[in-house]
Parts: sequence; structure tokens; C-alpha cells
Amino acid sequence: MDGMVHLPLIFDGQESPASEVWVGRDLLTSDTGPIQRPVKDWLAGRLLFIVSSPTVMGWHGGKLEALRRCADRTVFLSVPDGERAKSIDHAHELWQAMLEAGGKRDSRLVTFGGGSVGDLGGFVAACFVRGIEYAQIPTTLLAQVDASLGGKTAIDMPQGKNLVGAFLQPKFVLSDTRVLETLPPPELRAGLVEAVKKAALLDDGALFVEMEERLDDLLAGDPETVARVVAGAARLKLDVVARDVRESGLRKVLNFGHTLAHALEQQLGYRGLRHGEAVAYGMLFALRLASRRGGVADDMVIRLPQMLRRFELPDLPTEAMTLEGLMAAMGRDKKASRAGLTWVLPAGLGKHRFDSDLKTTWVASELESFLDDPWDGLG
Amino acid sequence: MDGMVHLPLIFDGQESPASEVWVGRDLLTSDTGPIQRPVKDWLAGRLLFIVSSPTVMGWHGGKLEALRRCADRTVFLSVPDGERAKSIDHAHELWQAMLEAGGKRDSRLVTFGGGSVGDLGGFVAACFVRGIEYAQIPTTLLAQVDASLGGKTAIDMPQGKNLVGAFLQPKFVLSDTRVLETLPPPELRAGLVEAVKKAALLDDGALFVEMEERLDDLLAGDPETVARVVAGAARLKLDVVARDVRESGLRKVLNFGHTLAHALEQQLGYRGLRHGEAVAYGMLFALRLASRRGGVADDMVIRLPQMLRRFELPDLPTEAMTLEGLMAAMGRDKKASRAGLTWVLPAGLGKHRFDSDLKTTWVASELESFLDDPWDGLG
Repeated sequence: MDGMVHLPLIFDGQESPASEVWVGRDLLTSDTGPIQRPVKDWLAGRLLFIVSSPTVMGWHGGKLEALRRCADRTVFLSVPDGERAKSIDHAHELWQAMLEAGGKRDSRLVTFGGGSVGDLGGFVAACFVRGIEYAQIPTTLLAQVDASLGGKTAIDMPQGKNLVGAFLQPKFVLSDTRVLETLPPPELRAGLVEAVKKAALLDDGALFVEMEERLDDLLAGDPETVARVVAGAARLKLDVVARDVRESGLRKVLNFGHTLAHALEQQLGYRGLRHGEAVAYGMLFALRLASRRGGVADDMVIRLPQMLRRFELPDLPTEAMTLEGLMAAMGRDKKASRAGLTWVLPAGLGKHRFDSDLKTTWVASELESFLDDPWDGLG
Repeated sequence: MDGMVHLPLIFDGQESPASEVWVGRDLLTSDTGPIQRPVKDWLAGRLLFIVSSPTVMGWHGGKLEALRRCADRTVFLSVPDGERAKSIDHAHELWQAMLEAGGKRDSRLVTFGGGSVGDLGGFVAACFVRGIEYAQIPTTLLAQVDASLGGKTAIDMPQGKNLVGAFLQPKFVLSDTRVLETLPPPELRAGLVEAVKKAALLDDGALFVEMEERLDDLLAGDPETVARVVAGAARLKLDVVARDVRESGLRKVLNFGHTLAHALEQQLGYRGLRHGEAVAYGMLFALRLASRRGGVADDMVIRLPQMLRRFELPDLPTEAMTLEGLMAAMGRDKKASRAGLTWVLPAGLGKHRFDSDLKTTWVASELESFLDDPWDGLG
């Protein structure tokens, strides 16, 4: 197996890593990968629960053979694809099934699927008998570059996404980039948006520049390029998480583009726009606010939209949303405090700033223009 | 206010306490108590959710006046009394109500009631937008000496108690012993059992001896004696919790009497026996096992049952349970591992040991005799 990357997530003052993140092609099936050791030791003699969807199991289930052999016994727990998995009813079902199967505190849980499967499965692990150890095997690009990393787990409520959840670091994240080779191009692009998000605001833009340079290969899904970007984005995220596990400060930078994105998704009933596509529009809107306020370097105002134009985003389905609805949804954002929303704004290539002083009425008027033409004045 | 005790819970390597536990008569209403400062600062300008039951609010709601004045706005969330509050449906209802009321990450939650209200409210706080700060104001003796301390939160599942939950230390525990003065004697005695549990196995028995010496006053509910025992038991528990927050070792000592107690409660459908009464029988059974195995000092075999006899426990409702049902319930205990149950056994006054080598068939035969006469051969 070539190009395997091993990234330990080590918090201040802890000697051993809270998570080990592995990125590599054929990681799950290779004779030399992490399944052969630390994962093997972690599962030896244990009852293993695998949370996945029929679709993912149909495509990739065979790749779990080596993993299953490490455990004493494996129980598959099936959940639907996509956001609708993340309901309290599904969490409840999984807890019941785990108890019926004899799950204990020393049982293990592995999520195998996209971000929704990981979010739900992680939450289920976090609360089952007050917490059991778990691992994530993300099978979408979005989950490999973002959702599987950092220990955020959650389910949705009618009022919005991820409103009930927990922080629990997965013991392992195993990103086998081989599974990405079956992704349809729009899924690939939507996943890359979360890599753009981090690349644009962190590390002085080193990853952003690399993505610009290899954009053709990246959008064509070249395996080696995709694997490099997955590992690069994972590294940026882990660095932020290690410095702010519970999102009390710096980690909020990862919310870039998400304030509007969550509101868009909620207005659309989580249909019609992929999460990454909503985040792309969210980043454009944050860039617009930053540009209107001043304080963002000119090249960023050009280069970020330039890259996103290549992602062939679907049009914003504005007919299915209202300005008032979007503003209300943003006001309910769980990251809001009594003082209001903190916006994550781009400041220049690989640089960001936080702004808590944006007037609601001004944001609303900017949003109205934005809904007319999201690209106006950018790129 | 006299005799106020302040116990900070400080974990290894942390400078500031994870919890501050205050014990004292009229703590909630005094002009010199903790409500006037750190609690006041903690609530200033915040949205406060108070989780309580109509019964508790009817008896003691007036005592929350000073607390409410500290917050910007207070929303009461009502739940039923007792164990039936601890369902996933009630947790779901509270999350919905908190979202509807505009709850955010910087909102606060206070539980006001017995152990069930604290367990449910703590779990709701632990998962609401991935965790908000909360405090416990326990209004039963059981909750003051045990349930409110240590950060365990949970709801029940049909398969058993506390099977879904989280660890979240309350920022404050405010035990106003004035509220205990309305407790009916059986409630008082059931609460004292959890103090006996800790006193019997920890600290070389110093608290146990004190309880023996003042047993008449204690059982008569003398406020000063009760307050001393509440503070003493809290101190013992916090010392254990600080050394083992997530119950990976030492903290299991607090499970003394609970292996059988949970099985009894489950067989009885959480009716007919108070939690403390079930724990008393569980301690007697653990003592019996220890005594049969050898390795428990003789005086303990006499003094522990001697004290518990004074508690006037109701008879075990054996007609409502089966030996097989109890054994199966213990096998599902969430503290069991694939290797089986670890028993917490008394070893002598204020001393304990763990035993993972008890054969299931032997335990079953001992349990059968125990159900015939729980006191046989003891005290």
C-alpha cells in the first residue's frame, strides 16, 4: 500500500493520542495497514457493532472482512442513508439492538459510511452505558476530510441539525481513499468543499495553493491527488481540534460557511442541496460580508470564488426559501450565544478573523442581494 | 447559616474545581450562602432552565427565589416524580422545549429534585447542543449523599436502569439540608443507606463509626446530625470520583450493593422497593458472598447488618421475582464485561476488595438461600 499517512491526535498534556487517523489507498484490505495492529489489538476478544447503511454495505461491505476477523463477534446495525439516519428514533433503535445483543462497556462500535452514519453512530457510542470506544471508517470524501475528524457526534431535531449530541473522539479514523473511486463527480466536488474551507483559512494557504495547482486532477478524481488533499485537510483539522477540543475558541474557524449553510439546509428540509454545496454558498456569503466590511485581502476575493466556480454548483433553489426563514434559522444556530452570532470571515489567503459585531439588519440586506446573485462582485 | 461545608471537586492536573459542592441548612435562602456569589456570577445574564417535578415545586419551589433572580430569564421544565422521568421520551420533550425557548450553548440548566430529576436533567444538559453547564440542587437525602455527586447522568431502557447516559460534572451541587426536614422516615432511612454504603467500605470506617454512635439521632432525623452525615458521605464520594472520573477502577467501589439492587429493581418494575432499600439488600447479599468466600473481618459481618436492622427495611417482595430473572438481569449489568461481573465485597471496617472470580452457579445458589432469608447468618 503506498502513501499511507498516520496522524495521531494528541491533546495538550496527554501522552497517548486520543485518536489515530490513518489515510491511505486500500488501508482496509492491505496486509500492512493499521488493521493488522493497533486496530486488531483494540478489537481482540470484543463484541463489535458495525453501524452502516445497506447501500454502503452493498458497495463496500466486502472490504470489512479483515476488520471483522479481529473481533470475537460482529453485529451489524443497519441505518438509512443520509441525514434521516440522524433521528432520536434511530439512536433509540440502535441502543435497544445493542442491549439485546449483549453489548457491554467493553464492546466496540465502528461506523462505516458517510457523515450521517458517523454522527449517529458516534452519538450512540457516546451515550451507550455512558460511553464505549468507537472508530470511524468514513466512506465519502466529505466524511474523510471533515465529519469523521474531531469527535463531534450528533442527531438532528426539527429545529435544526446536530442540536443534540456529544463530544467523543473516535479511537481510530480509517480513511481508505479506494472507496472514493466510486463517487459520482458531484459527490466528489461537494466533499472537496470542506477541504477548501480549511485550506482557505488556515496555515497561510499552503494547502489552498496546492489545490489550485492540482485542481484539474482533483476534480477529475485522480486517486493520488485526492489522497494528498484528504491527508492535508485532515492534518489541518486535527491541528485545530487538538488546540480546542470542545469548540470554545479557535475551533470555531471550522464553522466558516456553515452559519448560512445550516440555515439553507434547514429551509430546504435537507433536500435539494448537498451539505458541501450549501457550505460553498455559505463561504461565498461570508466572503461577501468580509469584502463589504473591508479587511479581506483582494486576492482572496478573487481566488476563492475562482476555485468554487470550477465546482459546478447547482443553482441556489431560492424559490424554496424565504429571507425571513433563513434569518430566523441563523438566529437559532446552536453556536449563537445570547450576544448573537459570531461570523467566521476570511481575512486573506490562509487567514481568518471572527466578527461578532455584524448588525442583523445589515446581514439581512446583504443576504437579500446574495440570494439574487451569489456571485455578484466576486471572482 | 451555620455549619455550611464547601467541598471542591478537583481532578488531577486541573487548577480549578470541576464541581463545587455546598452542604448546609438554608443554603438556598441564606444571604451569606453560595447563591450570592459563585452561583450568581454563573447565572448572570443567562437563560436558566430549571428541571423539576410539580411535587417538589409545590413543597420547595419558594426556596428558588434567590436563584431565579440571578438569571436573565427562567424557564421551568416539568417532569414526573421518580424513575419514570428517566425515559428517552422525556429527554426528547425537554430538548424540544429548550430549543423552543431559545436555549443556546451558553444557557444554564439546574435540576431541582431527587435522583431521577438529576439523572434526567444532567443527561439533557450533557447532550443539548453537545453539552451546556448545569447544577444540581438535590432535594432528597439519597440525592444529596449520592446521586447528585460525581457527574453520572442517565436515562433508563426497558433492559435496565441508566443504560444510556453521559459523564458530565455539575458545576455546582447545592445540598440544602433544610429540605430534608419534610422527608417521611422511610425516605430518610432509604437515603441513609447510600451513606452507609460509602461509610462501610471507605476511609477505614471513620464515618461508619460516627454513624453508629449517632444512629438514634440520625434515624430520628436530627438536622445537625443528618447534615454532618451528608457532608461526610459527600466528602468520601468526591474523593473517589476525583481519582477515577470515568469509573475505570477505584470508582467501582461505589457499586457496593448495586449489582443485586439493580436486578431487584428491574424485576420489580421499579416499584415496591425504594432504591436505598434495594441497595441495603444488595449490601447484605455482597456481605454474605464475602463471608462465604472468607476474607471479611468478623466485626463487619456483625456491625453492618446490625446497623441495617435499625433501618426497618420492608420485606423483600420475593413473590414478584424469580431467581432466573434476577440472574439474567445481573448478567446484563452495564458494569459487566465480557469476562463477567466484578463484585464489590466488604473486607473489613472501611475496607473493600473486588472479586471477578465468583462462579455464576455458586452465586445463583447463594442467591436462592438469600431470597429465603436475607438475614440468615448475619448480624
